[in-house]
Amino acid sequence: MTAIKVFGQQELPNLPWEDRPAGANGPLWRYSGNPVIPRDQISTSNSIFNSAVVPFDGGFAGVFRCDDWTRRMQLHAGFSDDGFNWQIDPQRIEFICEDPEIGDFVYGYDPRVSSIDDRYFVTWCNWYHGPTIGVAWTDDFRQFHQSENAYLPFNRNGVLFPRKINGRFAMLSRPSDNGHTPFGDIFYSESPDLCFWGRHRHVMSPVTNSWQSTKVGGGPVPIETSEGWLLVYHGVLTSCNGFVYSAGVALLDLDQPWKVVARSAPYILAPQTTYECVGDVPNVVFPCAMLCDEATGRLAIYYGAADTVTALAFGYVADLVDFARDRSL
Amino acid sequence: MTAIKVFGQQELPNLPWEDRPAGANGPLWRYSGNPVIPRDQISTSNSIFNSAVVPFDGGFAGVFRCDDWTRRMQLHAGFSDDGFNWQIDPQRIEFICEDPEIGDFVYGYDPRVSSIDDRYFVTWCNWYHGPTIGVAWTDDFRQFHQSENAYLPFNRNGVLFPRKINGRFAMLSRPSDNGHTPFGDIFYSESPDLCFWGRHRHVMSPVTNSWQSTKVGGGPVPIETSEGWLLVYHGVLTSCNGFVYSAGVALLDLDQPWKVVARSAPYILAPQTTYECVGDVPNVVFPCAMLCDEATGRLAIYYGAADTVTALAFGYVADLVDFARDRSL
Amino acid sequence: MTAIKVFGQQELPNLPWEDRPAGANGPLWRYSGNPVIPRDQISTSNSIFNSAVVPFDGGFAGVFRCDDWTRRMQLHAGFSDDGFNWQIDPQRIEFICEDPEIGDFVYGYDPRVSSIDDRYFVTWCNWYHGPTIGVAWTDDFRQFHQSENAYLPFNRNGVLFPRKINGRFAMLSRPSDNGHTPFGDIFYSESPDLCFWGRHRHVMSPVTNSWQSTKVGGGPVPIETSEGWLLVYHGVLTSCNGFVYSAGVALLDLDQPWKVVARSAPYILAPQTTYECVGDVPNVVFPCAMLCDEATGRLAIYYGAADTVTALAFGYVADLVDFARDRSL
Amino acid sequence: MTAIKVFGQQELPNLPWEDRPAGANGPLWRYSGNPVIPRDQISTSNSIFNSAVVPFDGGFAGVFRCDDWTRRMQLHAGFSDDGFNWQIDPQRIEFICEDPEIGDFVYGYDPRVSSIDDRYFVTWCNWYHGPTIGVAWTDDFRQFHQSENAYLPFNRNGVLFPRKINGRFAMLSRPSDNGHTPFGDIFYSESPDLCFWGRHRHVMSPVTNSWQSTKVGGGPVPIETSEGWLLVYHGVLTSCNGFVYSAGVALLDLDQPWKVVARSAPYILAPQTTYECVGDVPNVVFPCAMLCDEATGRLAIYYGAADTVTALAFGYVADLVDFARDRSL
Amino acid sequence: MTAIKVFGQQELPNLPWEDRPAGANGPLWRYSGNPVIPRDQISTSNSIFNSAVVPFDGGFAGVFRCDDWTRRMQLHAGFSDDGFNWQIDPQRIEFICEDPEIGDFVYGYDPRVSSIDDRYFVTWCNWYHGPTIGVAWTDDFRQFHQSENAYLPFNRNGVLFPRKINGRFAMLSRPSDNGHTPFGDIFYSESPDLCFWGRHRHVMSPVTNSWQSTKVGGGPVPIETSEGWLLVYHGVLTSCNGFVYSAGVALLDLDQPWKVVARSAPYILAPQTTYECVGDVPNVVFPCAMLCDEATGRLAIYYGAADTVTALAFGYVADLVDFARDRSL
Amino acid sequence: MTAIKVFGQQELPNLPWEDRPAGANGPLWRYSGNPVIPRDQISTSNSIFNSAVVPFDGGFAGVFRCDDWTRRMQLHAGFSDDGFNWQIDPQRIEFICEDPEIGDFVYGYDPRVSSIDDRYFVTWCNWYHGPTIGVAWTDDFRQFHQSENAYLPFNRNGVLFPRKINGRFAMLSRPSDNGHTPFGDIFYSESPDLCFWGRHRHVMSPVTNSWQSTKVGGGPVPIETSEGWLLVYHGVLTSCNGFVYSAGVALLDLDQPWKVVARSAPYILAPQTTYECVGDVPNVVFPCAMLCDEATGRLAIYYGAADTVTALAFGYVADLVDFARDRSL
Repeated sequence: MTAIKVFGQQELPNLPWEDRPAGANGPLWRYSGNPVIPRDQISTSNSIFNSAVVPFDGGFAGVFRCDDWTRRMQLHAGFSDDGFNWQIDPQRIEFICEDPEIGDFVYGYDPRVSSIDDRYFVTWCNWYHGPTIGVAWTDDFRQFHQSENAYLPFNRNGVLFPRKINGRFAMLSRPSDNGHTPFGDIFYSESPDLCFWGRHRHVMSPVTNSWQSTKVGGGPVPIETSEGWLLVYHGVLTSCNGFVYSAGVALLDLDQPWKVVARSAPYILAPQTTYECVGDVPNVVFPCAMLCDEATGRLAIYYGAADTVTALAFGYVADLVDFARDRSL
Repeated sequence: MTAIKVFGQQELPNLPWEDRPAGANGPLWRYSGNPVIPRDQISTSNSIFNSAVVPFDGGFAGVFRCDDWTRRMQLHAGFSDDGFNWQIDPQRIEFICEDPEIGDFVYGYDPRVSSIDDRYFVTWCNWYHGPTIGVAWTDDFRQFHQSENAYLPFNRNGVLFPRKINGRFAMLSRPSDNGHTPFGDIFYSESPDLCFWGRHRHVMSPVTNSWQSTKVGGGPVPIETSEGWLLVYHGVLTSCNGFVYSAGVALLDLDQPWKVVARSAPYILAPQTTYECVGDVPNVVFPCAMLCDEATGRLAIYYGAADTVTALAFGYVADLVDFARDRSL
Repeated sequence: MTAIKVFGQQELPNLPWEDRPAGANGPLWRYSGNPVIPRDQISTSNSIFNSAVVPFDGGFAGVFRCDDWTRRMQLHAGFSDDGFNWQIDPQRIEFICEDPEIGDFVYGYDPRVSSIDDRYFVTWCNWYHGPTIGVAWTDDFRQFHQSENAYLPFNRNGVLFPRKINGRFAMLSRPSDNGHTPFGDIFYSESPDLCFWGRHRHVMSPVTNSWQSTKVGGGPVPIETSEGWLLVYHGVLTSCNGFVYSAGVALLDLDQPWKVVARSAPYILAPQTTYECVGDVPNVVFPCAMLCDEATGRLAIYYGAADTVTALAFGYVADLVDFARDRSL
Repeated sequence: MTAIKVFGQQELPNLPWEDRPAGANGPLWRYSGNPVIPRDQISTSNSIFNSAVVPFDGGFAGVFRCDDWTRRMQLHAGFSDDGFNWQIDPQRIEFICEDPEIGDFVYGYDPRVSSIDDRYFVTWCNWYHGPTIGVAWTDDFRQFHQSENAYLPFNRNGVLFPRKINGRFAMLSRPSDNGHTPFGDIFYSESPDLCFWGRHRHVMSPVTNSWQSTKVGGGPVPIETSEGWLLVYHGVLTSCNGFVYSAGVALLDLDQPWKVVARSAPYILAPQTTYECVGDVPNVVFPCAMLCDEATGRLAIYYGAADTVTALAFGYVADLVDFARDRSL
Repeated sequence: MTAIKVFGQQELPNLPWEDRPAGANGPLWRYSGNPVIPRDQISTSNSIFNSAVVPFDGGFAGVFRCDDWTRRMQLHAGFSDDGFNWQIDPQRIEFICEDPEIGDFVYGYDPRVSSIDDRYFVTWCNWYHGPTIGVAWTDDFRQFHQSENAYLPFNRNGVLFPRKINGRFAMLSRPSDNGHTPFGDIFYSESPDLCFWGRHRHVMSPVTNSWQSTKVGGGPVPIETSEGWLLVYHGVLTSCNGFVYSAGVALLDLDQPWKVVARSAPYILAPQTTYECVGDVPNVVFPCAMLCDEATGRLAIYYGAADTVTALAFGYVADLVDFARDRSL
Repeated sequence: MTAIKVFGQQELPNLPWEDRPAGANGPLWRYSGNPVIPRDQISTSNSIFNSAVVPFDGGFAGVFRCDDWTRRMQLHAGFSDDGFNWQIDPQRIEFICEDPEIGDFVYGYDPRVSSIDDRYFVTWCNWYHGPTIGVAWTDDFRQFHQSENAYLPFNRNGVLFPRKINGRFAMLSRPSDNGHTPFGDIFYSESPDLCFWGRHRHVMSPVTNSWQSTKVGGGPVPIETSEGWLLVYHGVLTSCNGFVYSAGVALLDLDQPWKVVARSAPYILAPQTTYECVGDVPNVVFPCAMLCDEATGRLAIYYGAADTVTALAFGYVADLVDFARDRSL
């Protein structure tokens, strides 16, 4: 194990955690109580998945994708003391927004939450004449203030870095089209003010003949380490019966995060359990959040399973860094 | 609960039934013994699903879609005393038809049975140079007399109302194309004689960003109530991994059934159990028949699950009427 | 040339006509002044094509597809003394219809006009929640009375026979889908009253490896002859650069018109001139009307060219009958 | 004709011009010498089309799309005294760019040139891991300085307004996908510095059942008038044999240009001549530049024809404004 | 049961075997311990399926498709004493090949092993600028010598007969395209030397309205019987949610194996268990190998399940021969 | 111009020829009398194109693709004294073949003729359960003897080298699929006997962002030169309105012809004249034969235009060799 330093994280003694079980041979292992959040955790939900959590106020808070019985995609706030048991608000988030052109909510999904300078920023796939990246901030996970959308449609998987880079806010995203996009690269953009975005750079493409041959998109907010930004991301393979979503790991340059330092050829997690293989969309592992205990380097990764439930996997920062480097493309 | 009157139904003390279990929070709940008819109920069947049953002779009779080991789609008759245990004829129905141009059976599927004036009418998806709506009648579920097909191809999900409307037979159907049609609205047609059809009217379309965004089609024979025709129907959403079939509820105007009085935005049943999510076609809930006890308003809904088995759900007429109105689009 | 009798036609001394030119070696030859109707014959038209004409009041009248500058498809009436020079009403036909559900005009195209018992019936592709067959009648080509649509969507190329068959009205049509349909057979239907339709029969399918391999659809109103109904129809081949529409000829049984007596393997007209190959849709020959002089058996066939202009071709009934039989599939 | 004021244009006594010919009945008429620039104007070009010109130094200058014999899309500069006769540089533009990540030219097409405060800005479809909007400036049409790309891929038809709006640069664009995109709306974005872009607003969508039913995209740089921004744009209809590109006209609000004041239902120019219907892509009219003589309101519109040659059409500002308003959707 | 002779097989007292369980009503029955090889039998495998085994050295040996965590498709050798418990080499086979143009391994999958004259020949789907049929031989399952690819791309499912026919090597294959091919027939080819192939003959096509309506491909190496070559093969049906792979049986003429003597209309095995319905590709049964005990006619068929694990089914040669003949198309 | 030697050609004083006209600036120029063979050269043909000619008996002979009025693709023989004026047999070639399995003619198109050791070999796209490469020989262009098909379907554009290479017959071909294939590389294969083929090698792929970005296929029989085999081939670009076929040039290694020595980035001929842009398939230039006068190095290239007529272009061997090398990719 490398002597790797982690920056910008807190000590999280209450990090949800289980030790590696015997026989597990990948860099991550699953929570034995998965799914950690069932599809009907709130009485009106069809499914709860692809959701983002952060340390908050001694415990944890998060923004959750809760599709309702209409299959409309909504965002809900939630809280937890231990990261296992969650109280999710049965009412969806009503974003506060001055301009109704922007704030008129049609649907939102696949949120990420990034903590920057004591404020929490939510990015999500927001419909504005097509899917694009919505942006909002909150201090308390009760009131959410919506800003301008970051980009033109069509875009998904907007992931805000946890600090400014080169003096500017920085975001990963995956430009797409208006359907079940069969292509997708990760790009990087900068903004002086979270309103205007530019200096777009290409980060990574799919890889032929692999689990990530169709498209790739950012996952949890990257973690700063001495070896680079630790990025967990999803990749998609197209089988004759549809998309298969798995998770991989990469290291991005600290100052020029569009430069890939290392990127594992193998996946770190792929749909193999029943709750990952069976559900509204079979065969999906989709990580959206990653808690890190700075003291131990322990990671708790929340991921959507089968577009139906939320699951949890555990690992160590150092193991993922090593995996990205030792098994790099 | 509204004071709702039901017309044209019988008292069915032997209606298959289970009381609502604790924790069920939708308008319907599933039979604890599902699937009520397994895929191999007859020794030559690959699957038995999307089938129609009616009260008959103190018990129940029905027409069943039984795909054989060739995966050829066939219709079989069956009988039951209690609605749970079914004796299905291992031989397919041989329709009696004078004109071989019409009676030459290629395949038939997704039957509905409507009882009109002491005679039972079967409608189904019948191949005649493409899928269209086959029509036949029987008095005893042993001899079936086939009439002219109702429409030109391409059509599916023909559902005959249980009485004449405005002096004419009335049918719902879903015009389609020659494949796995990615669109579909429900239409209404009238006939003076069950031979010639016309006065076609549009009833309902899919709904964007919902469980019914791709296509909708009629389900069981509608039940006449004081609030309108109670229609349970299926809707389809297209995920990146294929179609998802769920069930919804609507009320249609009694005299002008192409006018929708109420239509629930949420689904009333969606594929969530293993037998609905895993099978020849994953993620399918497809209701085709609805028994109603006039005395209590109890409903037993038979639906195909995963295009593989037949399942049963229970509910009350009044609950569905309320759901359609209270949660209407 | 066979001794063929023609029924139900008039003597038309003013039939538009040119004798066969030297070197023409198919059963038809083109008018030297083609296109007989240019795209801008009326000042607001983008194109005038796929239109139907009949003898009327000593001259000729017709219903014309005139797409306007919005590319909206409209129907206009028109008159001519000689069949060459046409006065087309610059205002579109406003159909008189009691029921706004039916009469609310969205678009209409590809009309045919059939004269039955001293009344003129117009059938066309009429939008009612999808393309279907609109039906109207007129006595004077000034007032048009719209009836119920004949079928459910999706349908095109409705062609009414010029007399009742077996005591009922009879129509050919081509069931389709909601786009640029890549399949299509001709079917036959009957109606006691032009309101309700049934007794649907399959007439003919596309032919592999030929000019009619993708779809076929009826063309002009069939002409009754001693040898059967003379049907000119269109067929479509799909090249790597799109559809190619050509015209063929068939004979249908007089009493059971769904039975094909003869059908030519070769086309009788295919897009080869500039006005057929270049225009809004390249490579289209689409016949919609056929005038016949009973005295001589001369035919004047009006066809749309490149979906842009109207062209004219000439021939003899007997030649087409022979061609259908001698070169039959 | 309305009393319309035009802002921000020059007097152009040498504007290329022909008076309206007899018989022309649309708002524009074509140059009798079309194509004004043939496909082989330079010896190495396969085609020259979709190009942008502006008044420059007493004459005219422009940026031209010149596809070479490899069919690689390139941009070339050119000059003309009279707008009819052009000297196009046989060498492609070599953009000056500090950052090779941006300046490494793969292909560029469909340029527009906007004059803002005595400097000329070129926007074009620039490949950077997909098509996006490239931006450069020049003072002399000899040296071109490339800036950051405006947006993430996939985008096309970036059109810069000729002055700042609300204190910011303003651009129209058409988000797309990575192929022959079958959808497309016009959006509006703002930038404080031509580097970072945001405040994205939706401007207009395609119109069902019309010449612009598939996609729409901005054309020439809009002209400021007292009635709003005069926007000429292209729209696409999908026939069974492919896309048809035509031109339309709209008025946008002066201060909130994402608000459409008027928009003509009919096209103002559609492919009808041989040079518009026959070529590398049949049936294309694609306007990219519009010269305006402030003194007379005369317009000379340059448009690509059949993706092969450059053509010229003439008209008056007032006529287009009237057409947009009188024939508005 | 017919008195059927089997040729070219050995006595296999250690054939993996279970007797037919009560209630099984098809010609085959599944191993109660399925999957016989789990997806992670070797620590680096994502899945092990579609693999081929033969009697070897008193026990069994085989070539296994082991997709790794990169989802790269690899071939591994393995050994077993009893056919149930397998030792699979964790290192992929490194083929020995003189010509790097051929031997440069990109990916390989779906192997078959045929024993001809005391040498073992492996055929598999081998990437050479597209999928084609790779050929290699081994004497010991430790060293594999790769020859020229048999055909041009695109081809799959190459199955070598276990002896020369008409003095030449003989192979079945399924020409395909470069994706998830939606068509496919079985062809037969001959070779004097395993290098040059020709005398291609068509064997069988898909069957409309059946489990094998999309494509068919050879399965295990055919077994010679007195009634013809016993061929187990796979067929594919396209549901609205993707491909369903099942297995069928046919008899081919001994001397002219492209002539089908009998072919069962029903499948002999279809995906119905969880391990066949849930996995990387839901709903797949894909047989690749068939062990036969000459003494008893017992068969052990190895098949891939859900493209994830290897499963085992049992039966008798005579039952399959009867099934092919009694239930023949 | 390089001092290039040509091998294996004859002196052809009667080679059809025109000198380069003023203003022509590519390596080839068109015959002023094009199309040299009109679509109706024989009275029953819809079109004559993609045809192959060789020197024969002091003049020229050839095999012609003549689609008839059924649009069935047929091969006809023809003769000419001067290469301009052709007598084409109005009857299609009836191949002599012992095995009806092979000789049963369905359709044939796009022939090439190669002269090897005083015998003429015809290769063409021949239907045998899909398109593949048919092979036949003739000594007199009157009797044609058909051999086994060279490959399994699906294949097109089989081009036989004019002498054995490495002691074996050698052929280029383009593996494809069963439709209007949107991909395609050129491969090379060898045969000891024209019956069995193997030793397949990849030759060349399409080139991104160019006239040959979709697929490439061999054209005329290659000409042996001191610099390598001179190969003229076709390449396809996919515009939004379909395929565009152009011609390019390459040099292949003399002994290992799968190795490309040079390959021009630009095309040498692209569809730009009316007869190339307008016809049954717009925008097609498809070379199939190349006559060479050994004395002067003059070339006469026959190519299909718009899949409708046959056209002729002229040039010099040395110019093509130089173009391939000087403008090489």
